[in-house]
Amino acid sequence: MHNNSVDYSLYLVTDRDCLGGKELVATVEQALQGGATVVQVREKNLSTLEFFQVTSRIKSITDKYGIPLIVNDRADIALAVDAAGLHIGQEDLPLAVARRLLGPDKIIGVSASTLEEALLAQEQGADYLGVGAVFPTNTKDDADSVSLAALKSIKEQVRIPVVAIGGINRSNVQPVMETGIAGVAVVSAVIAAQDPYEAACDMLQLIRA
Amino acid sequence: MHNNSVDYSLYLVTDRDCLGGKELVATVEQALQGGATVVQVREKNLSTLEFFQVTSRIKSITDKYGIPLIVNDRADIALAVDAAGLHIGQEDLPLAVARRLLGPDKIIGVSASTLEEALLAQEQGADYLGVGAVFPTNTKDDADSVSLAALKSIKEQVRIPVVAIGGINRSNVQPVMETGIAGVAVVSAVIAAQDPYEAACDMLQLIRA
Repeated sequence: MHNNSVDYSLYLVTDRDCLGGKELVATVEQALQGGATVVQVREKNLSTLEFFQVTSRIKSITDKYGIPLIVNDRADIALAVDAAGLHIGQEDLPLAVARRLLGPDKIIGVSASTLEEALLAQEQGADYLGVGAVFPTNTKDDADSVSLAALKSIKEQVRIPVVAIGGINRSNVQPVMETGIAGVAVVSAVIAAQDPYEAACDMLQLIRA
Repeated sequence: MHNNSVDYSLYLVTDRDCLGGKELVATVEQALQGGATVVQVREKNLSTLEFFQVTSRIKSITDKYGIPLIVNDRADIALAVDAAGLHIGQEDLPLAVARRLLGPDKIIGVSASTLEEALLAQEQGADYLGVGAVFPTNTKDDADSVSLAALKSIKEQVRIPVVAIGGINRSNVQPVMETGIAGVAVVSAVIAAQDPYEAACDMLQLIRA
């Protein structure tokens, strides 16, 4: 199964608002060179055309590095670029609907901030969970907070991979990984870094330590 | 073919921002009772879940009246609710991509404000064109303006149905229909009306006069 082959260790999530003048696609490529193992395109406030175009460009980069590309929220764009999968939040398409659109072979990840949401998503066929926010974050205003104890509890009660998200960086990644999860999602820790390659290398080393 | 069987006379476009306190789905149903021949769900600033939910509810109403439902912009939601089709603007998915996602049997309409855009959309397989804005409008800030002479010229140079849009109401619909187009799209003229049933009846009568 596709899902067993995915390495969720360093799950990069894009956010053009924290690029600080860098170019998005080049930044993603540097992060891939540094060791990012999954890329999720998550861009709000773009037209559908712009979202499609930037996702297409990132898809050619992720293909080049053999890394799965996940599209946030937009099942149509995931289908249009033949992405590896879709990530949905609790305000996006219902999981059953997304699965029907994408078919059985695409990865579908679901955001969960409670054990109840996590178990429901697993039961409905999610391939992995994004759990957070484990630390305060500026990149997603509406994120509920999840303690490391709660993260560990969710991890221990589900069978599918758990990826922690929310304000994770080199200074706080160690206790997050000690919960036993499959990997961490990073946004600004890599995207906003002056050297995204170095930032990704450093994070991956800490994650695998 | 599906497209030949569509009556574009009174093409209702939703906009929850001009309901003035009325309920959207009930308003759509009243417009259908009054004679709306097509419904397009166009809702900005909703979460994907809300857009999906409201479109699902409207789909059961349009099914009840045997009227085609078109979804604006979101191919995934069009697929999810098995809508009759999708309407795309110049900032939405490219037509070829939308056609690939929806297949040959769904209706795809394209917004055009120039002859060039209209001819290109026809060549790429659009089933109908939405041309406007023919009059100033408060419901779509970014709409280019199209004179009635330009509308007529476009209508005469394409083979597919043309639906005019933009600020059309009972006081100005007559010269619009005199251009020979297939129908008019209305937003606030029906959605904002105190009595959407009456407003739709009146519009349809004027359109067919």
